[in-house]
Amino acid sequence: MSFLDRIAACNNHDPALFRPFIVAGRQMGLVNHAFAARLEAFPSVFDVDAASVSLAAGLTNFEDRSAAVAEVLRGLAGQGVIKGWRDELFPVANGFGHTPLMQIERAAVPLFGVRAFGVFVNGYVRDGGNLKLWIGRRSKTKPSWPGMLDVFVGGGHPIGIGLMDNLVKEAGEEANVPPALARQARPVGAISYRMNIDGGFRPDTEFVFDLELPADFAPRNTDGEIEDFYLWPVEQVMETVRDTGDFKPNCNLALIDFFIRHGFLTPDEPDYLEILAGLRQ
Amino acid sequence: MSFLDRIAACNNHDPALFRPFIVAGRQMGLVNHAFAARLEAFPSVFDVDAASVSLAAGLTNFEDRSAAVAEVLRGLAGQGVIKGWRDELFPVANGFGHTPLMQIERAAVPLFGVRAFGVFVNGYVRDGGNLKLWIGRRSKTKPSWPGMLDVFVGGGHPIGIGLMDNLVKEAGEEANVPPALARQARPVGAISYRMNIDGGFRPDTEFVFDLELPADFAPRNTDGEIEDFYLWPVEQVMETVRDTGDFKPNCNLALIDFFIRHGFLTPDEPDYLEILAGLRQ
Repeated sequence: MSFLDRIAACNNHDPALFRPFIVAGRQMGLVNHAFAARLEAFPSVFDVDAASVSLAAGLTNFEDRSAAVAEVLRGLAGQGVIKGWRDELFPVANGFGHTPLMQIERAAVPLFGVRAFGVFVNGYVRDGGNLKLWIGRRSKTKPSWPGMLDVFVGGGHPIGIGLMDNLVKEAGEEANVPPALARQARPVGAISYRMNIDGGFRPDTEFVFDLELPADFAPRNTDGEIEDFYLWPVEQVMETVRDTGDFKPNCNLALIDFFIRHGFLTPDEPDYLEILAGLRQ
Repeated sequence: MSFLDRIAACNNHDPALFRPFIVAGRQMGLVNHAFAARLEAFPSVFDVDAASVSLAAGLTNFEDRSAAVAEVLRGLAGQGVIKGWRDELFPVANGFGHTPLMQIERAAVPLFGVRAFGVFVNGYVRDGGNLKLWIGRRSKTKPSWPGMLDVFVGGGHPIGIGLMDNLVKEAGEEANVPPALARQARPVGAISYRMNIDGGFRPDTEFVFDLELPADFAPRNTDGEIEDFYLWPVEQVMETVRDTGDFKPNCNLALIDFFIRHGFLTPDEPDYLEILAGLRQ
């Protein structure tokens, strides 16, 4: 396996499986054909034809759209069509920070192929001239990617919270990072990918942060989502990313970006420029 | 002006002005229509038709191709069609580090729209919690971009030298950096752009390095290409990049990449994701 394989695994989108999802005349996502067929049962909320799924024209504002879709989604969750309900609302907007046209339950975001945003925090420790990375092991009871390795702290970006405030909240819950320390996280870019998974489409963008941690800081999970933490030399993390499928897929991208920015993955790597291009799709 | 304007200035490529340049059945670049017409005068070297410019099929190896094209180029330089002859040879290859199909004089590379590679070194100094960047002012007698601001060290990547060896050579010539110090430069990624200039096409990729310099290091130019150096706080460099056209255009991209990687340009910038995408085209 190679770094490019890790990138390819997050970029397996097949446009033939989807049709556009349109809100207020704008394409906001993609719906797979099978899910589109299910939405035909709700003609007061969705106009479904062979070419697209549009939110009904009578739904003209944020509140009406969000309420009508929420009712449909709760019904589909009751039927088991939507799994892993989170009770967390994500914006549907034309770009990060733009005024949202509506909000939807997080678990349904991939079913509408709406771009989601999130944060990934690489937590690292300087040990003389060496760098070590804190790595998490996801709980075996987590609905998504149970038991897999994870970056230090990460989280989806719900509606109505600033990026840094969300980072501070996630860092507190996932790793017991004091707010003042979490706020030292430094934004260093973003990765993006186009992934098909469980019948959905995830055209996601994750803002990447680096957080240098004191040598005596020991993360401790407080929300039950991470069962263990490991402090590994960057070289060991690189080998694990490259040679195993142990990390949650999109975490590989945030880690590869770290390896590049810190000079561990160098232009001597024959795929260097392809890897770079692959991190932002 | 904005950071996006600086990126747009390096990405003004208009495909309508060009036709493919083909070597051994593979497209290796683009030739503008006026230059293609000039190449019709050399039918033993170039097959020119309305759709493309191909290197003559009889030229079947590196040496023959390079020699035949060199003869044409020397003639065109004598007529003033090719300006700023450098006596430096660049590879024509299907990717960085791939076996080159031929080599051509650097001054002619944009006329064939062949991808060129180079290195940019951001030289910075830590001053307590602040960062400062060393900035060069190009000599007023330089053929390209005279008098403009420049990154600490930069240079095109000629044939037959490793990336780090070229960096060490350029750092010595441009800024009198001792080799041992230059070798501490850390690869941190690459920027790329697609620029039309002087009738040519530059689909270039520049490998970016960061080099932390001791506070007592003072650069001194040894090859006459840089007339002055300034040590500026990063914030001042950011303002200069954003608000003025004082930097050589592609230097803006390497500096914007630095601002992002070091957390000076943050997701609070409304164009953040567009800027990120714009740095690698």
